[in-house]
Amino acid sequence: MPRYALQIEYDGRPFAGWQRQDGPASVQQCLEEALRRLDPGVPSIAAAGRTDAGVHATGQVAQADMSRDWDPFRLSEAVNWHLKPAPVAVTDCARVSDDWHARFSAVERRYTFRFVARRAPLTLDAGRAWRVPGPLDVDAMRAGAAHLIGLHDFTTFRASICQAKSPVKTLDEITFEAPPYPGGQDIRMHLRARSFLHNQVRSIAGTLERVGAGAWEPDRVRDALEARDRALCGPVSPPDGLCLTGVGYPDDPFGAARAE
Amino acid sequence: MPRYALQIEYDGRPFAGWQRQDGPASVQQCLEEALRRLDPGVPSIAAAGRTDAGVHATGQVAQADMSRDWDPFRLSEAVNWHLKPAPVAVTDCARVSDDWHARFSAVERRYTFRFVARRAPLTLDAGRAWRVPGPLDVDAMRAGAAHLIGLHDFTTFRASICQAKSPVKTLDEITFEAPPYPGGQDIRMHLRARSFLHNQVRSIAGTLERVGAGAWEPDRVRDALEARDRALCGPVSPPDGLCLTGVGYPDDPFGAARAE
Repeated sequence: MPRYALQIEYDGRPFAGWQRQDGPASVQQCLEEALRRLDPGVPSIAAAGRTDAGVHATGQVAQADMSRDWDPFRLSEAVNWHLKPAPVAVTDCARVSDDWHARFSAVERRYTFRFVARRAPLTLDAGRAWRVPGPLDVDAMRAGAAHLIGLHDFTTFRASICQAKSPVKTLDEITFEAPPYPGGQDIRMHLRARSFLHNQVRSIAGTLERVGAGAWEPDRVRDALEARDRALCGPVSPPDGLCLTGVGYPDDPFGAARAE
Repeated sequence: MPRYALQIEYDGRPFAGWQRQDGPASVQQCLEEALRRLDPGVPSIAAAGRTDAGVHATGQVAQADMSRDWDPFRLSEAVNWHLKPAPVAVTDCARVSDDWHARFSAVERRYTFRFVARRAPLTLDAGRAWRVPGPLDVDAMRAGAAHLIGLHDFTTFRASICQAKSPVKTLDEITFEAPPYPGGQDIRMHLRARSFLHNQVRSIAGTLERVGAGAWEPDRVRDALEARDRALCGPVSPPDGLCLTGVGYPDDPFGAARAE
């Protein structure tokens, strides 16, 4: 069966997360139903990041095995047609080899977490950022984040239900941007790693918010990390601010298609 | 009655526009109802820009006359409490003199219009940008926009129902930004003038989209302007991409409050 890589964007608010489950609709289910309108035999699809309920994506990557050949552009158009009106869209599509896997071939995941620090409730960005009454000290957040860069045992920063075999991960990057925002601050934290543990980004976001608010000294992040004790993590942030922005592969399937 | 300037943000999607009217809810009505929960005698409020249905604001400015003195911060907190759950928020508040007027004292309005040029439907930005199948040539749009800068008779670019006494306006600035966007282009057009005619920005946006798409030569914008003929305007854009981002006053009421 010819395999296709799909780059996917979604508003996470109405969904129970990426993964298909009993009960509320998942993004995976939504996509599988759209694909099966085109090809009833499409098997279950895999994605690079299994985002939680309420978490958004602008650069999720999934794979779909079709029973016949498709022009990638026409496949993306047809899937988008059947996805309507769900807030899910295929933003790129490429034919890949049979041994390419959206999840197992991925060597990098990129997430952005947005904090908005202001008193007023959010209107245009409701559900898309974590509003804290703030202000947040971004330099203190940077100092706290610096302790997390590199190879560490992230037991403190993973959900108790996390199924990863090892809590040891390498966090390659945490950087901050702070563009202007009406009546407050818009703080965008960018994280990059080969892979993340369950709730790792939200555990880091909730902990660094405590640092930014002045409730934690930046060095307390190092102490919490070194203790390898989930109880020492800051409060886990809500999902609102989190977005999967990109997935990296040794040979970017979309980059190759674009260069053709 | 002590007068207060309110800086207001809203998601325009659920509203019939700024102005109170019979029928669907307006932003003005929403704010007046919140203010009257605090003070039943609050008279009707005025705003700097009377945005249409579906148009957003991050920097609208209105005035409210209260029957007693309020600490501006406490007033904004109380109004925001009563505004919930409507997507309207007061992001700043300042005491102003009795002869200050949100509309008549304003000497500058700033709008941003967002085009997203891509094939896939919008998800996270649905209702917040005008999606066109694109691509758009931003340099051509800049060349077309250059004809509109300065003092002109904008008859071509105003709604037939526009009530302004004169179609002559000075457009001080049209600039473009094009940050990256998944699967396409995000084009942000920033406009600045003392005041705008009814539908002027959406008429300009719809015309420049034609230029960006290659259907119009940039010089056709000059010909349309010089003809002073509404029939020669490009199609008026939908409201989705439009946002009132700021209003300028000789003495910024919020800047003075912030500096105290």
